[in-house]
Amino acid sequence: MIAIQSLFRAARNAAMGVVAFLIAATAAQAQPDPLPSWNDTAPKKAIVAFVERVTKENTPGFVPEPERIAVFDNDGTLWVEHPMYTQLAFALDRVKVLAPEHPEWKDQQPFKAVLDGDMKALAAAGEKGLVELIMTTHAGMTVYQFQQIVTDWIATARDPRFKRPYTELVYQPMLELLAYLRANGFKTFIVSGGGVEFMRPWTEEVYGVPPEQVIGSSIKTEFKMRDGVPVLLRLPEVNFIDDKTGKPVGINAAIGRRPIAAFGNSDGDLQMLQWTTLGGSTPRFGLLVHHTDAEREYAYDRDTEFGRLDQALDIAPDNGWTVVDMKADWKEIFPAK
Amino acid sequence: MIAIQSLFRAARNAAMGVVAFLIAATAAQAQPDPLPSWNDTAPKKAIVAFVERVTKENTPGFVPEPERIAVFDNDGTLWVEHPMYTQLAFALDRVKVLAPEHPEWKDQQPFKAVLDGDMKALAAAGEKGLVELIMTTHAGMTVYQFQQIVTDWIATARDPRFKRPYTELVYQPMLELLAYLRANGFKTFIVSGGGVEFMRPWTEEVYGVPPEQVIGSSIKTEFKMRDGVPVLLRLPEVNFIDDKTGKPVGINAAIGRRPIAAFGNSDGDLQMLQWTTLGGSTPRFGLLVHHTDAEREYAYDRDTEFGRLDQALDIAPDNGWTVVDMKADWKEIFPAK
Repeated sequence: MIAIQSLFRAARNAAMGVVAFLIAATAAQAQPDPLPSWNDTAPKKAIVAFVERVTKENTPGFVPEPERIAVFDNDGTLWVEHPMYTQLAFALDRVKVLAPEHPEWKDQQPFKAVLDGDMKALAAAGEKGLVELIMTTHAGMTVYQFQQIVTDWIATARDPRFKRPYTELVYQPMLELLAYLRANGFKTFIVSGGGVEFMRPWTEEVYGVPPEQVIGSSIKTEFKMRDGVPVLLRLPEVNFIDDKTGKPVGINAAIGRRPIAAFGNSDGDLQMLQWTTLGGSTPRFGLLVHHTDAEREYAYDRDTEFGRLDQALDIAPDNGWTVVDMKADWKEIFPAK
Repeated sequence: MIAIQSLFRAARNAAMGVVAFLIAATAAQAQPDPLPSWNDTAPKKAIVAFVERVTKENTPGFVPEPERIAVFDNDGTLWVEHPMYTQLAFALDRVKVLAPEHPEWKDQQPFKAVLDGDMKALAAAGEKGLVELIMTTHAGMTVYQFQQIVTDWIATARDPRFKRPYTELVYQPMLELLAYLRANGFKTFIVSGGGVEFMRPWTEEVYGVPPEQVIGSSIKTEFKMRDGVPVLLRLPEVNFIDDKTGKPVGINAAIGRRPIAAFGNSDGDLQMLQWTTLGGSTPRFGLLVHHTDAEREYAYDRDTEFGRLDQALDIAPDNGWTVVDMKADWKEIFPAK
């Protein structure tokens, strides 16, 4: 009996040894660049150095896996935000779809401006007009109805300049970065000023970020039983604006721990970067995408309506934040068609 | 060369075969009961049947892993809520700690009632008094300061009847259920009427539920830079009440998809169970813990101040919800000392 057990154990050990060797050989052989769309400039080096630092066990910089939280702004950081936020393009399209049921809109701002394609008049309607547009197009249905509306729109709408679906106008280097962080035990969250229910229907497929890791602005919802079926109705009332000082508030409310890495592109991300990088005892990483490539994408910073980067750019060096020069640091902008 | 490769491949295949055999043998041999503290009564059978149904691939009941979301109430579902919510015990203790800095409390309700140990006068102060107690003890500091206060309190406070830390007065059968669901690809969330920041400091250690999977009531916070250090200040203003109709609202806001299993014990969980179980196309599971064991824990339902179970108990059969009879269905109540 003992002889048989020994034989068995010997066979198992031999088998394990061969398997271990094969695994080690494969690992040593294949170490492909996890960030192939990044040039070998300072930002890529800083990212890799940070990730290697926090993942090296038994060193002072090591951060346990559950605390490896990374937060990403969406508009202008993960996908294009010019010439206008995609969610605004969605709202304008919705006004056109709903117009036949609202003949009064022909003479009523801001709807008239949208129907006439008069962007100047729309701008003149200001924030009040914008809120009215958003509430009219984003409220008054259940959360599932809205989800379906977004899903249908995002599948068919095309960006006028690039003639591609908006979900293809995501930054290839950032897709690689998301995957690289996750492969190193990070949990990746989106923290956007955009509407949370506008993003959730497609973030899992496009970014690999599940709905429960998407934080954003929201309107109020109300629970009702309707003919024995539970529904959540979307109300025309602001619940939370996840922008500027709202970003750390939203992060704390949803995640409950401080991220160790934050990625943004505008002053709307300033406080999120401060909250993430300043005052913590473990290594931290902050990064700003600077849009410098008018040819392949857009070039803008201090003087723009969408995604202004001004104060955050000024204080980046003192805070040790990495600034990506899109033109110089990114080999590719969008995923290959 | 080909000969060497063939040899290599043969060795690898042989090794893999042995390993596969060993794994299969181990699995067949050791199938320990994942719910040993549950008696073999209807609730346990219903739970196991549900889990087996949603995890069996290529069957109509199969639910892909990312959609296996389970939500748990906390007070009375995962831990004891009598003779009062633990968070209220915390607030009363905080009043006593802070009293020396507030000599005026000696003559001011509801503080006087707390300092006198006069529970009748405290009850007379009603909800307004309660809110004042909560705001005084839960606001006016940073989120990290509050986290530390909770951590220190929960480590030292003891339940007066059981003489054990509150974090040991958790239900052993529910700990097993949480682990069993996670082992089957579920993501487990807490959805409590209690304060989210009161739970997060200890839920990971006690329940295996990380802070980002805890949903609860909250007060408003405000982001500030203080001497170059970012802080989040807790303000004495209600942000969200995660109870009754608030639970589906909170679930949708934080998770963005409908759970497939919900566990509660009171009418405060009614809408969460409705939202989870009614109107979905995939299998759903709802469960209520009925406190029937005055000897080992407590017996209460329709006539109690904390955790009233009335309407939900009435409609449970029609909705197909499982009702746990604590006395009959649970072998053990608390973890062994």
